[in-house]
Amino acid sequence: MLSEKVLKNLRGSSAIRAMFEEGENLKKIHGADKVFDFSLGNPDPPPPEAVLKSLRDLARENPPGLHAYMNNAGYKDVREKIAGHINNKDGTALAADNIVMTCGAGGGLNVVLKAILNPGEEVIVLSPFFVEYGFYIENYGGTMVVVPTEKGTFQPDLQAIEKSITPKTKGIIFNSPNNPTGVVYSEMILTSLAYLIEDKEKEFHSHIFVIADEPYRDIVYDEIKMPQILNIFKKSVSVYSYSKSLSLPGERIGYIAVSDKIENIDVFMEALVFANRVLGFVNAPSLFQKVIAESLGATVNVNIYQERRDLLYYHLTDLGFSCVKPQGAFYLFPESPLENTAEFKKLALKHKIIIVPGNGFGSPEYFRLAYCVSTKTIENSLPAFTALAKEAGLNK
Amino acid sequence: MLSEKVLKNLRGSSAIRAMFEEGENLKKIHGADKVFDFSLGNPDPPPPEAVLKSLRDLARENPPGLHAYMNNAGYKDVREKIAGHINNKDGTALAADNIVMTCGAGGGLNVVLKAILNPGEEVIVLSPFFVEYGFYIENYGGTMVVVPTEKGTFQPDLQAIEKSITPKTKGIIFNSPNNPTGVVYSEMILTSLAYLIEDKEKEFHSHIFVIADEPYRDIVYDEIKMPQILNIFKKSVSVYSYSKSLSLPGERIGYIAVSDKIENIDVFMEALVFANRVLGFVNAPSLFQKVIAESLGATVNVNIYQERRDLLYYHLTDLGFSCVKPQGAFYLFPESPLENTAEFKKLALKHKIIIVPGNGFGSPEYFRLAYCVSTKTIENSLPAFTALAKEAGLNK
Repeated sequence: MLSEKVLKNLRGSSAIRAMFEEGENLKKIHGADKVFDFSLGNPDPPPPEAVLKSLRDLARENPPGLHAYMNNAGYKDVREKIAGHINNKDGTALAADNIVMTCGAGGGLNVVLKAILNPGEEVIVLSPFFVEYGFYIENYGGTMVVVPTEKGTFQPDLQAIEKSITPKTKGIIFNSPNNPTGVVYSEMILTSLAYLIEDKEKEFHSHIFVIADEPYRDIVYDEIKMPQILNIFKKSVSVYSYSKSLSLPGERIGYIAVSDKIENIDVFMEALVFANRVLGFVNAPSLFQKVIAESLGATVNVNIYQERRDLLYYHLTDLGFSCVKPQGAFYLFPESPLENTAEFKKLALKHKIIIVPGNGFGSPEYFRLAYCVSTKTIENSLPAFTALAKEAGLNK
Repeated sequence: MLSEKVLKNLRGSSAIRAMFEEGENLKKIHGADKVFDFSLGNPDPPPPEAVLKSLRDLARENPPGLHAYMNNAGYKDVREKIAGHINNKDGTALAADNIVMTCGAGGGLNVVLKAILNPGEEVIVLSPFFVEYGFYIENYGGTMVVVPTEKGTFQPDLQAIEKSITPKTKGIIFNSPNNPTGVVYSEMILTSLAYLIEDKEKEFHSHIFVIADEPYRDIVYDEIKMPQILNIFKKSVSVYSYSKSLSLPGERIGYIAVSDKIENIDVFMEALVFANRVLGFVNAPSLFQKVIAESLGATVNVNIYQERRDLLYYHLTDLGFSCVKPQGAFYLFPESPLENTAEFKKLALKHKIIIVPGNGFGSPEYFRLAYCVSTKTIENSLPAFTALAKEAGLNK
């Protein structure tokens, strides 16, 4: 009666949601403060005051056309401001016409994939990766090719990528700072990747787009400098969302920024805007386009996330967990101390800790902790982690 | 380099946009008040005060979680209120779980089609029809089957529909009040259609969904009662948007209401929510879910539209234009007085009237006028229509 592809995907598509629901059940039994729920990437800090103020002001002033249709690419003045903001920060030379406003990064990725993919073409993703990529690629008849990152660093493995590029490769999606590892891909490795891709394009007479999924690019720690993908790769798009940097995930507001070095860029931009229209997004929500344009440069308090990272990272590694230190985002991705991560998940539940096993991210021997929860929750969880480590056989 | 399907569709996909741009050019030359632009369905009345007040209040009070992720189906309390509102109005028995909040009707239609279509399955649309349906259906590998409505009334032609239903028919989309004709499909005809569809499902052992695209259902005139699709068809969804009834087209807020008589409805709802998620909508914009839930029952001033309809309809028919009297929406769809509608479009441009030829709506011998423009613009346009009618050879 329904789409067979959708029905097939429904089964087992929601590992994160399933863990979230186990958490909700436990909270009903034991009380919310007794359960340590690290399952969901739902940011807990409020949006920055600049955002809340723009929202209040716009709602009160109600300028004409605030809720009306505009160009399917988004308001021109908003796109101009965003282009200028990126140019100032990273020395790019973007114009308003290099930007398409989107319904978050999820919307942006779908729009890009719709615009470029023909059935049977391949898209490389680097594991561990965000669970939804497989569905996004399948939406447009593409094939996902999973290439593991380097063990021990989670950095792109150039040799493995080189081997995976075929004449059918149309794109490579990566996500840095990474969900679930928190790793920032190194500029040096990405620069080498750019040469590698150009060589392969020449070899196969093909076109390979680099699609950087970057909702966490403004959540980085230890004064690390985020590489600007648009300066590194010729055929690249940066898909951004304000969900995390401004704690606005429910509002679905983001953009696609397109490298100005792409040949025939006008046709590419038209294809993106067309895809945005016919997938039914039509345009990014109008009020929040204006809100974020008034708040460029604002972010949530990144120090809060860094404190939480430190709290949890040092406690876990002290206990003997093996874990790469995150440089951004708000996830830890430690190795499971038990060979069977599902067993470890159950053990964690016994200690009222909700984790997400790594199999959904393409890395079954790990588990994810989303530390976008209150610092108090993290503090309260530390003894539970200690007990869990002991029971899992870790000791130092 | 790009998706071939998208490239193919880019050409000639934007008849309305093209006319809008011709209008903008003319306005630059002659001044905005000298050009009568009937090209775009961008509502000109402001949102009702109830909506603006909810927005101001929510922005000021900033309740916790206002911009956070929620269930991909939308806030439960919002869905409950909408279900209750429909039940009160139309005697349905919907619950929160029969509703999925969507990014407008464009988003809702894509979600429904993704959830039900397998490649090669057919979807019937009744011409004249909203230009985007073809793209929406193609997104999921479906085939659009165009069935003309009755000449002279634009009502569904049951015999023609019956002939067009095959074992591959998976759905029928219709839009009432209709864009571009303004016609409301009669309850009697729809009831007959329901029997016809059930017979065909039995004959072919198939499942045929009725997908009602209803963004104009609250913009009806002459105290007409809108039929409730969910009471008429067993396997039906009503896809609604607040774009027109609340003048919020830029905000992308609407819903899918699903008949509670569908078998295995839980799986269907799961499929819809999954489609909403993996197409990248994730959820309908959160703030506007809350805004519209506080404003149920409010609409823009429908009398204004009715006045405009009367002004334009009576003037045009007096001049000898042949036109069905709209019962809803804000479009007129008169017959072109010249055999070649493209010629007539040019003639209209000479009189600074911007129309959209009917070929994009599947009915090339007609043209569309969107009368969601100021009453003054309509009044000022009347002499131009008189001159145009004369030059086109109409006289009574």
